[in-house]
Amino acid sequence: MDDKNNQEENDLSKISEVELIKKITKSFRNTNKSTIIDIGDDAALLKFDKTNVTISQDILVEGVHFDLSYMPLKHLGYKSVIVNISDIISMNVKPSHILVSIAVSNRFKINALEELYEGINLACKNYNIDLIGGDTTSSNKGLMISVTCIGNTTTRKIIERGGAKVDDLLVVSGDLGAAYMGLQVLEREKNVFEVNPNSQPDLSRYTYCIQRQLKPEARLDVINYLEELKIIPTSMIDISDGLSTEINHLSSASGLSFHIVEDQIPISDNTKTICEEFKIDTSIASLNGGEDYELLFTTSKKNLKKIQQSNYLSVIGTCINKKNDNCMITSLGQKININSSGWDSFSVNN
Amino acid sequence: MDDKNNQEENDLSKISEVELIKKITKSFRNTNKSTIIDIGDDAALLKFDKTNVTISQDILVEGVHFDLSYMPLKHLGYKSVIVNISDIISMNVKPSHILVSIAVSNRFKINALEELYEGINLACKNYNIDLIGGDTTSSNKGLMISVTCIGNTTTRKIIERGGAKVDDLLVVSGDLGAAYMGLQVLEREKNVFEVNPNSQPDLSRYTYCIQRQLKPEARLDVINYLEELKIIPTSMIDISDGLSTEINHLSSASGLSFHIVEDQIPISDNTKTICEEFKIDTSIASLNGGEDYELLFTTSKKNLKKIQQSNYLSVIGTCINKKNDNCMITSLGQKININSSGWDSFSVNN
Repeated sequence: MDDKNNQEENDLSKISEVELIKKITKSFRNTNKSTIIDIGDDAALLKFDKTNVTISQDILVEGVHFDLSYMPLKHLGYKSVIVNISDIISMNVKPSHILVSIAVSNRFKINALEELYEGINLACKNYNIDLIGGDTTSSNKGLMISVTCIGNTTTRKIIERGGAKVDDLLVVSGDLGAAYMGLQVLEREKNVFEVNPNSQPDLSRYTYCIQRQLKPEARLDVINYLEELKIIPTSMIDISDGLSTEINHLSSASGLSFHIVEDQIPISDNTKTICEEFKIDTSIASLNGGEDYELLFTTSKKNLKKIQQSNYLSVIGTCINKKNDNCMITSLGQKININSSGWDSFSVNN
Repeated sequence: MDDKNNQEENDLSKISEVELIKKITKSFRNTNKSTIIDIGDDAALLKFDKTNVTISQDILVEGVHFDLSYMPLKHLGYKSVIVNISDIISMNVKPSHILVSIAVSNRFKINALEELYEGINLACKNYNIDLIGGDTTSSNKGLMISVTCIGNTTTRKIIERGGAKVDDLLVVSGDLGAAYMGLQVLEREKNVFEVNPNSQPDLSRYTYCIQRQLKPEARLDVINYLEELKIIPTSMIDISDGLSTEINHLSSASGLSFHIVEDQIPISDNTKTICEEFKIDTSIASLNGGEDYELLFTTSKKNLKKIQQSNYLSVIGTCINKKNDNCMITSLGQKININSSGWDSFSVNN
């Protein structure tokens, strides 16, 4: 019986990604003085002379992170860069270089890989990023993409996850939940197509949300705008795994909590319409749906006016002097806890 | 008919890794002045203030690059770091940081990943490297590991692939072919085990070669030794894909050729014994077998004496003022062409 319990505890499905990383890296010790931030933030930070260099790495796996039945390869290439540079931007740094490694099965043709790299190239052009290396190899099954992104700055302040102060405003860029609802539409159309391959879906009503899912952008414009307005966030993170998960990250890194107001969460009209059609609560879509790649940051409340003047920044809450008390005030005035229940790559798949 | 030809030409099996990379990256343009070397050398080179930062990224796929039926996970972790830092070392830079991303199927248990990371940690300790980030995610099948390695220097000269000069010596560290012969032994024992799972193989006669396959080292000691002796290579590469492939890389990058002498290629006694047992020519093992992670470099012939004094450096040839004429003078005095026929991840698998 004990053996069985031990075996079960040993299952990857029994552990979150954060816990797993803690467990497998607990014995690692740094020895280089250039290492400023290691595991645990959006990106690592190294310091060489006066230059702060941020680095992040992601891995995208076919069937886990993307589905080629509705994701064109060019979009996939574009998105795989965006996902990664978003981590660098969320440290308040401009991304500058990427390395891309791919493992592909022989199901893929050369022109398919050319399409993939066209998308990568477009993202590089749009964000002024140089492709400096990587690896190409074969796989037994499917496509895997691993991207490393490097950013560097001598002037910008590096913003970490843990710097929120009591009474700080919690601010989000753009709108939330759209990428998740775009995914719902694409998944539904895939199912329809599987039943009737001759169906010709009219997706024009869903354009905004589908675009947010298939061709997201990273918010370099937001950190540039904040710099222009002289707003320095006290902490920042990008929303890749859903608002609730990211709030919990900012909270546990600062030891403080956040109270947010449901009505203040920015949701696009298209997201609302699709939520209605799918009978999904808009707050569920924004709190738990991932892949928006918007920025979530905290800043002193003295910046309230400047933020309110912007078209694409929304104050959604405040920072509270309390531990483990992240919650949302609903439209009906109820207070509900926000637990981290966004995307977790191990639990989702089980 | 034309369509069929086009389709065939579009097959990944019809193109080498080098040609594929050229094809898919031909439209990329650099825009950052910090980019000094991009695709095409062992590692990329960025310059921040006075610091040269080298970066490389590799991806290892179960069933393509490793076989867990004879590769213990701890060794795999160790080797996945070594493979990568070897690329940095071959630019004459000390590796300092790594990011490790893994994608794993739910076949793997938590303690299996702990073993993998024990090996990664051991390599980090042995080479004073800090683990600074990465990603962990699930896969549909098997294990993939992507490692990014960073090195930095303000003092060492960066050595590229293309700097060889006419009359330079071609020098190799350690001995060659051992990792490849270790692999032959392991593959044979795997086959025996599959037929008779009760067989207890005596592998003690093969220890050296098996160790070279399962737990290779990167030659940081060699670049430190060269620095001590004030020998500055004119070009350098690590031998991951077999001597012939790497000679061809140095040759095409410099526009010159190399003549090597078969009898001068360093081969260990254990490799010779196993070659005899397997009826494999030792030169085939060293020229075409990969994964030795020794360094291959060129340097002025005025350094001949210093190199001859070393126990682990062998002069195997010279640089010739000619294009596309890489060849080997055999023990019998014959001159044979050396074509790149080492490991190519796309062609091997087809």
